[in-house]
Amino acid sequence: IDAMAADAARRRQDQLTKPRGSLGRLEEIAIRLAGLQGTPTPSPDPVQILLFAADHGVAAEGVSVFPQAVTNQMVRNIAGGGAAVSVLARALDARMEITDLGTVEDPGPIQNVRSERIGPGTGNIAREPAMTDEQLAAAMNAGRAAAERAVDSGARLLICGEMGIANTTPATALACALLDLPAGALVGPGTGLDQPGVARKAEVITKALARHVTSDRTPLELLARLSGFELAAMTGAFITAAQRGLPVLVDGFIVSASALAAVRLQPEVRNWLLFSHGSAEPGHRRIMTALAADPLLDLGLRLGEASGAAVAVPLLRLACMLHQQMATFGEAGVSEA
Amino acid sequence: IDAMAADAARRRQDQLTKPRGSLGRLEEIAIRLAGLQGTPTPSPDPVQILLFAADHGVAAEGVSVFPQAVTNQMVRNIAGGGAAVSVLARALDARMEITDLGTVEDPGPIQNVRSERIGPGTGNIAREPAMTDEQLAAAMNAGRAAAERAVDSGARLLICGEMGIANTTPATALACALLDLPAGALVGPGTGLDQPGVARKAEVITKALARHVTSDRTPLELLARLSGFELAAMTGAFITAAQRGLPVLVDGFIVSASALAAVRLQPEVRNWLLFSHGSAEPGHRRIMTALAADPLLDLGLRLGEASGAAVAVPLLRLACMLHQQMATFGEAGVSEA
Repeated sequence: IDAMAADAARRRQDQLTKPRGSLGRLEEIAIRLAGLQGTPTPSPDPVQILLFAADHGVAAEGVSVFPQAVTNQMVRNIAGGGAAVSVLARALDARMEITDLGTVEDPGPIQNVRSERIGPGTGNIAREPAMTDEQLAAAMNAGRAAAERAVDSGARLLICGEMGIANTTPATALACALLDLPAGALVGPGTGLDQPGVARKAEVITKALARHVTSDRTPLELLARLSGFELAAMTGAFITAAQRGLPVLVDGFIVSASALAAVRLQPEVRNWLLFSHGSAEPGHRRIMTALAADPLLDLGLRLGEASGAAVAVPLLRLACMLHQQMATFGEAGVSEA
Repeated sequence: IDAMAADAARRRQDQLTKPRGSLGRLEEIAIRLAGLQGTPTPSPDPVQILLFAADHGVAAEGVSVFPQAVTNQMVRNIAGGGAAVSVLARALDARMEITDLGTVEDPGPIQNVRSERIGPGTGNIAREPAMTDEQLAAAMNAGRAAAERAVDSGARLLICGEMGIANTTPATALACALLDLPAGALVGPGTGLDQPGVARKAEVITKALARHVTSDRTPLELLARLSGFELAAMTGAFITAAQRGLPVLVDGFIVSASALAAVRLQPEVRNWLLFSHGSAEPGHRRIMTALAADPLLDLGLRLGEASGAAVAVPLLRLACMLHQQMATFGEAGVSEA
């Protein structure tokens, strides 16, 4: 991180024709990106969205209102241009790469989808580990390789998103384990469980935590036992992004659980994370607090698919344009306070 | 307002490939705009920004950290492309019209600035009325005519902004009078007063309220006595926008005071107002509460110039694109919950 570039950006902000600090978090974004990108002209563009899909054995416990077939159906919809993230990526002119890391049924080749299947979904965490150590390594490496591709292709901002029916359950279990909190502190309705459904989901997560969590478990062990292929891939992507100096705009609840795991594995990852929005999923707030994060938006989103991060991209763009294009007091002949 | 168009939009949102309600306030925006614009394909574009500038006699009381000459200097800067709103209008491809309603010194012709000067600034509200009834009518008519031009040119969203050194003082006084609150409940630092400066400003506002407010004053009388040319123009613009069926995206503190006056004059105006952001100016929250408004963004902005409303435009655009371009469950072959 380039402290001199950040300082220069801060000085420039104080010379732009506006009361000092009056652009609030937009100033903060420009200064932060200047430091992360090491340049007086920060910009989020090109934006790279990495979309990881996978299925989850714990769906068998009835923790989602949607049938598991929806994961593959939505992968097709995302690739075909009809999903929220498809519309947003197109509207924002953001690059998107979609990777199937292991849905229950192999859908065969789908245009614009990379097939890097690790297995037909994970194990049911209420009864067994989500994945083996080898599968965890494969998932994390898939994410790391995707982040490498993003850097190599010139991306200046990374967004990760996920699609996987039932994946708020492993995300909640992982976050509970990492934060040493009970299921009840983080559990929520996901895509739309009713109150009895949330209670059942909490029981499933409690069972998973009892089975897999002991005080000596490392974050990697918790990822293998409690997470999912897409969650682990995003953790890997975030670690590589930080190592390669690529800023990350974190999406909502599930992505934040992956980001939390990345920070636990490599604390310096935290410096590379910007937080896009506060999710309607209630446990998100606890994860944000643990990461000392104050998301930019609060729009009651709970869709996933990187949609919340995508919606925040214009704020980053406008912040950078204001930083670069506004006149200084001297240039404009405006008197200072 | 077209309730059938809003209902149709709501039904469409429930058929799009996402959990119901999972796009939160983005769904709400699309449904709201569909109802206001009376169409299944709502859109904020073209966006029209109306920027009104004027000076304020109360500046003589030392209520701003900037000298009064800055109003004219900033009008030049806005017209010349160097101000925040200039950068934002360009980035967003929004139309902008700048009108000088009366700065202290007539700057002569400025390219891209309409000169509709009502006087060399207002009277000092601590000692006299801000303007005469004739001046109030001229200011409101200037705003009404600008809104008419916006409608006639095909604008589908109206944003008003202001530039006027010291204008948080009349805005605060006006809001206090309309809300029957003392100065201390709404006063704040504006462009950057320190604590003693805020205390002095509160005294000035208290004096103005004592001089001009009685229980039988109408909103029009309060506008004449306590506001400013740009504040009254925006009130007029909002009334015309509502009458002509043009949705309004309200900027921060000062614009909200004008909007409050418009709603007091014509309660149905409220239906046409969307609220862009919560200002860092502390009194803004009280005005939002009075208008039952829940602004979309909270970025600590306190610049004015329509900047906060402009920053929210991409959210409206993305909300409308998602509404129009996402596939339905049926179209995409995705199973429902």
